[in-house]
Amino acid sequence: MLLRDLGEREVIKRLINILEVEEYEDSASFDNYVISCDAVVKRTHIPREMSAYQIGKFLVNANLSDIASMGAEPKFFLTSMCFPRDTEMEFVEEIARGIRDTCLKYGVKFLGGDTKEACEIVLVGIALGYSEKPLKRGGARVGDYICVTGSIGSAAAGFYALVNEIPGYEKFVKRALEPEARVKEGIILGKHASSCIDITDGLAYSIGEIAKRSNVGALIYFDRIPYDRDIEKIADICNVSLEKILLYKGGDYELLFTASKEEIENIRDEFKKINSELYIIGEIREKNFGIKIKKDKKIIDLNTSGYEAFRDFT
Amino acid sequence: MLLRDLGEREVIKRLINILEVEEYEDSASFDNYVISCDAVVKRTHIPREMSAYQIGKFLVNANLSDIASMGAEPKFFLTSMCFPRDTEMEFVEEIARGIRDTCLKYGVKFLGGDTKEACEIVLVGIALGYSEKPLKRGGARVGDYICVTGSIGSAAAGFYALVNEIPGYEKFVKRALEPEARVKEGIILGKHASSCIDITDGLAYSIGEIAKRSNVGALIYFDRIPYDRDIEKIADICNVSLEKILLYKGGDYELLFTASKEEIENIRDEFKKINSELYIIGEIREKNFGIKIKKDKKIIDLNTSGYEAFRDFT
Repeated sequence: MLLRDLGEREVIKRLINILEVEEYEDSASFDNYVISCDAVVKRTHIPREMSAYQIGKFLVNANLSDIASMGAEPKFFLTSMCFPRDTEMEFVEEIARGIRDTCLKYGVKFLGGDTKEACEIVLVGIALGYSEKPLKRGGARVGDYICVTGSIGSAAAGFYALVNEIPGYEKFVKRALEPEARVKEGIILGKHASSCIDITDGLAYSIGEIAKRSNVGALIYFDRIPYDRDIEKIADICNVSLEKILLYKGGDYELLFTASKEEIENIRDEFKKINSELYIIGEIREKNFGIKIKKDKKIIDLNTSGYEAFRDFT
Repeated sequence: MLLRDLGEREVIKRLINILEVEEYEDSASFDNYVISCDAVVKRTHIPREMSAYQIGKFLVNANLSDIASMGAEPKFFLTSMCFPRDTEMEFVEEIARGIRDTCLKYGVKFLGGDTKEACEIVLVGIALGYSEKPLKRGGARVGDYICVTGSIGSAAAGFYALVNEIPGYEKFVKRALEPEARVKEGIILGKHASSCIDITDGLAYSIGEIAKRSNVGALIYFDRIPYDRDIEKIADICNVSLEKILLYKGGDYELLFTASKEEIENIRDEFKKINSELYIIGEIREKNFGIKIKKDKKIIDLNTSGYEAFRDFT
């Protein structure tokens, strides 16, 4: 059986079985630390419009987003980078500058790494953070609110603008090519939220993850999902539904989290101090309710399947 | 300028410069931990005779050898693995079994990881270990002895036997395809040695690394290098010099270390308890002595340049 016939999730299920690990995720915890490792593969993860500097920035942010989603404070970063031998040194140096500046920005110390030769560019980032009690995907409780840290769909809109060469939407393109991890928000959520995940794989998939891991149901209110109204213009031009952009495309580095009513107020207060906001988009329900979305006054099942590597096409 | 025109070491020099890090190595330390990340690329690192199970074993051992060379006790392991979508699931599962069994063998906990799609197999292993004071390459002092933990050249002999299809040397082939990290020895060396490195990149290169980082010279006695006499037969058949096999080919997972005369005795005593031995092959000299080797009663300069990715061919 080939990986393409099984799809990413079945592959991971079988790996978990053999490796006798509870979860096989981008991130894990040990002692008072969390660690994330996330590979960026040129061909499948990096749009050709992304500059080398932006690739370096992206590599760090992708990992810091994993650390943030565990409610931890990022501290250290390493890389294992593979390049073909006909790569331009200037390109590699620009990636390094992107890595350096992003580490500096977040007060993360670059520790070192490994450089190898391969037939395509594969960059693995490894981030380490502190947390005595890491936030998990599986901690949501019935009655909790479901929230996001910012507006959704901007990165996806940026990709549509890029692919279809629609001018005038630089704000979205920037969100697609230079996503920024919610580092400060993650540290606050670590103290108050009941569960957390980043939504880079799409909002619907992430809601499904929280609900399944927490063994609960969820109701999302489509009209409460915060988004930039200009996304509707992109949707129109590209003949794609707003729903697809907001729920399924992913690419945003916002955090999806759950918290009790009381903790929501604590989070809101602490977010204010860092000029950040939270948006309540739904609530956790009993498991037998299922995972649903209310849209145009109708409550329907939410498709939470998401993108699958090895099988789907990017 | 392309990476192939610069070679691995110049590439790394430039990366160090940008990333403002003291060393850009496979391993680094933070708080009371050491961490190593080491990528295994199918095309350049894995002989086609290596089974999937052996690849998994190799990935863990390569990283545990880095942890051992820092005198640390390995504790945790993660992977970031990339596969083409037409990879057989059974192949991936066998790699996972190799990883699992090797982690179990050394009491290392597998924490999780990341799986992505790429055009070739790239496996990054990440190992974490405990050490309050990690051993460095740069700690050798004038008067220290230079030692190795076992016989040299067996892995290289195994590769020659494989490539030239010479039957009857399974003991060497096993050393090439299933190298075992000197985990227990590393923990002992952490308490007594002044510097340490593994010799997977070749004995001569590793001696050069210790000497250069420690700002000292070195004298190696060729006839004290321990090796299996059958290597001479392989050298004969393949028309390659014994010197090349012992000094330059690499692939052995032995540790090269330095220690004072007194500490040598402590190490020897502790090694005995784990049925291990040490072999004194030279001594640290003043820097202006250079890095030399005594062979056939002549003292000559030792070529410590080693293999360079991006430029040399494997």
